Amino acid sequence: MSTSAVPVNLDEKLSQFSELWAQKKVATLNDYEVKLAKLKGEFVWHTHEDTDELFLVLSGRLTIQLTDGNVVLGPGELFVVPRGVEHCPVADEETAILLLEPAGTLNTGDAGGRMTKAAEPLS
Amino acid sequence: MSTSAVPVNLDEKLSQFSELWAQKKVATLNDYEVKLAKLKGEFVWHTHEDTDELFLVLSGRLTIQLTDGNVVLGPGELFVVPRGVEHCPVADEETAILLLEPAGTLNTGDAGGRMTKAAEPLS
Repeated sequence: MSTSAVPVNLDEKLSQFSELWAQKKVATLNDYEVKLAKLKGEFVWHTHEDTDELFLVLSGRLTIQLTDGNVVLGPGELFVVPRGVEHCPVADEETAILLLEPAGTLNTGDAGGRMTKAAEPLS
Repeated sequence: MSTSAVPVNLDEKLSQFSELWAQKKVATLNDYEVKLAKLKGEFVWHTHEDTDELFLVLSGRLTIQLTDGNVVLGPGELFVVPRGVEHCPVADEETAILLLEPAGTLNTGDAGGRMTKAAEPLS
């Protein structure tokens, strides 16, 4: 344990990348991954058929558009999008989030397209 | 979705209880639970044989004692205690944390004893 027993400082990890919409893996919990991302603008409408997805806003403001309304999250607020629920994140200002979901969950879910990108380790 | 599409504000949830070492459920993610707790003092040494356990400090300072050293977490820092690793949280000042682990994970793991308490919903 001794070499890996170092906390993950979220601000420090966020300072290590600037790419928007990339998902950076910072920890694993069983078969789940904790990921950080920076968002600005609108993502794509998509659905994860097999898993819920947790969003925790660290800075900025995130709107999660759902087909029957929006959820608006500020810093220190979290929301779980249930599996099978179509959603589309949008951020008017640059927003930093923590994401939690099973390893291998694709960012664009069932939608695919040019914004599809596998999560990457953040060293 | 419309009636449940409300974000979880962590500060607001923390303001709703004061009991130390109680785990308050604020969200579920598949078969995992997101829980909040307030800690002060020393817990008990214990192990979760079947699961990793994620600690994210929201305020205060948490030391996670491990058999070969300590991990000290401030606000915005997280640490995952791997399954099977004996640990004992201690907080010199009152500390608020977010915990994430599979539903039904007992706070005292294999140790049992008087501090054992099931997680409770926070309305």
